[in-house]
Amino acid sequence: MTSRDVTRPICIIGLGLIGGSLLRDLVAAGHPAYGYTQSTSGMRAAVKEGFEATDDLDKALSRAEEDAALIVVAVPMGAVDATLDAIAAQAPSCGITDVVSVKTPVYEAIKARGLQSRYVGGHPMAGTEFSGWKASHAGLFHRAAWVVTYDYAAELEEAGQRVPQRWTDLFSDVVRMIINAKAEAIPTRVANHDAAVARVSHLPHVLANTLSVVGDNGGTLAQSLAAGSFKDATRVAGTEPDLQRAMCESNSEALIGALDETIELLREARASLSQETPDLTELVESGHRARTRLEARSGARKESVSPIKISSRPVLRLHPGGPGWVRQLAQTEDLGGRIEIY
Amino acid sequence: MTSRDVTRPICIIGLGLIGGSLLRDLVAAGHPAYGYTQSTSGMRAAVKEGFEATDDLDKALSRAEEDAALIVVAVPMGAVDATLDAIAAQAPSCGITDVVSVKTPVYEAIKARGLQSRYVGGHPMAGTEFSGWKASHAGLFHRAAWVVTYDYAAELEEAGQRVPQRWTDLFSDVVRMIINAKAEAIPTRVANHDAAVARVSHLPHVLANTLSVVGDNGGTLAQSLAAGSFKDATRVAGTEPDLQRAMCESNSEALIGALDETIELLREARASLSQETPDLTELVESGHRARTRLEARSGARKESVSPIKISSRPVLRLHPGGPGWVRQLAQTEDLGGRIEIY
Repeated sequence: MTSRDVTRPICIIGLGLIGGSLLRDLVAAGHPAYGYTQSTSGMRAAVKEGFEATDDLDKALSRAEEDAALIVVAVPMGAVDATLDAIAAQAPSCGITDVVSVKTPVYEAIKARGLQSRYVGGHPMAGTEFSGWKASHAGLFHRAAWVVTYDYAAELEEAGQRVPQRWTDLFSDVVRMIINAKAEAIPTRVANHDAAVARVSHLPHVLANTLSVVGDNGGTLAQSLAAGSFKDATRVAGTEPDLQRAMCESNSEALIGALDETIELLREARASLSQETPDLTELVESGHRARTRLEARSGARKESVSPIKISSRPVLRLHPGGPGWVRQLAQTEDLGGRIEIY
Repeated sequence: MTSRDVTRPICIIGLGLIGGSLLRDLVAAGHPAYGYTQSTSGMRAAVKEGFEATDDLDKALSRAEEDAALIVVAVPMGAVDATLDAIAAQAPSCGITDVVSVKTPVYEAIKARGLQSRYVGGHPMAGTEFSGWKASHAGLFHRAAWVVTYDYAAELEEAGQRVPQRWTDLFSDVVRMIINAKAEAIPTRVANHDAAVARVSHLPHVLANTLSVVGDNGGTLAQSLAAGSFKDATRVAGTEPDLQRAMCESNSEALIGALDETIELLREARASLSQETPDLTELVESGHRARTRLEARSGARKESVSPIKISSRPVLRLHPGGPGWVRQLAQTEDLGGRIEIY
């Protein structure tokens, strides 16, 4: 691992929407970064735009090992195991992070290979319904939440053990990378992440697909009448089916819980509509309140004319490794807050 | 009623998001138009911008009667009865259309007052989560579907009776108004409209509220991680609760049917996720297919670089009153097509 006064280069494995956009942002921020993609056409497009990219995984990983790079695993869930095997074999001393949308199975794969002391998980809450290098673009992560996991430190603390400096440095470098991508680093433990994204990311995908089908069942007239509310609510059903399935299926336990709440609310709504005088007050009032709160928290409202967008997330300025820092991470996590490091 | 070579002025009752935007578009198109709003501040804002507006309903309706104007009922569902009573009393010879989002209760209110020979229903499939004159803007209806109902003609035809010229002229004028607002006129019978919008408009509102609540139940961490997919899918929960309730509750029968399909699909998804190997293939594949079809049908895809946006709806050029024209309307309705008149 590199000494602390040298910038650790970043090697991104997978140059799709997320990995490709990260490469663009890091290079724009002046951070040394290069990538691998299995897509030869994606590699060629990246190289043509002046980026350092290869479609040779061995080459990328031996360079990463030589550079003491931070490796970012930016492949779909189904390719995580093979990628970690390759990293363990060919880049045995590199720090590892990832951008996969479910954290429990990734952390299990990390632990199965004994890599946890070299791993800090990540997940940027940003994306579009498109995929591949061609969909990548600078600024995708601007002001987005980017989860950074700290289970390893929390587990050691709980066991009364010291968190190694090497891991603390890795954590700091991952946070720096996130801030270089102009995102906000949100400390979160793996299980809490998966429970939260089941509600705010995977459930929206299930509902988008369901609504698409029910709308489609209405035939050409219904489709012709579908406007903004329907199109916005079904947009993410346009995401590649394999990507949607991978995130929902690998987070099934948490997603089932969120689905049960959803089905219960819809049954109550159905009952309210079946009364002699249909009355949706309860659902609509509580939904509207929740939506208004979310809008207020996520900063400037659409109608605002102010050009200044400031983050609405509470911020903790943190010295990784300092006294009580893991407890501070947990407190920030409870608030959905972001961290900055010094 | 005015003779056919004179442009019939348009009197809009209600200058909220829809009525206000229509007034802007009609005036921009050079069509004589004026409006009433119960909101004195809305009236003042409209007048300040150079529009003819009053907050005196009697005055608006007597002017409409004098002008032989076409009256557009652009009030919330709950104010329809009182508005129709006022029209029946003070503008007894004017043609009537409306922009209310559910058509069965409006048509029942029309029939209860014996106004059906003077009525052609309408519903523009456009809007935002905001309301009031301040939210109105030119171009809101550009390329939007605007339903135009023809039950009266269909009922007469079925009974072997002639459709009066007076109604045919009214139908033509409503279509002309829609085209002046740059929208697309979609002929639809009342019951078919309500069944379709239950799927593509009212169900999305129920799901947006439900998702807002389930996301909110995840606490501050989940809310902090909520990104594009969640925000887009919950946007319309931000609509005024009373407006949401009015449209869902007044279309409860059709909405319950759409809800039952939804709950069934979600229960199937839950079962698929509970298997030893979770598998969402069926829902995701069918949802993705439906969404892709919708996107293809609604014209240029987001990625398209073509600046030319052409309507993807089949078009029927129609002569209202011509032989077989009501049958042609029904055929166009089955295709979700639009009409132009000559």
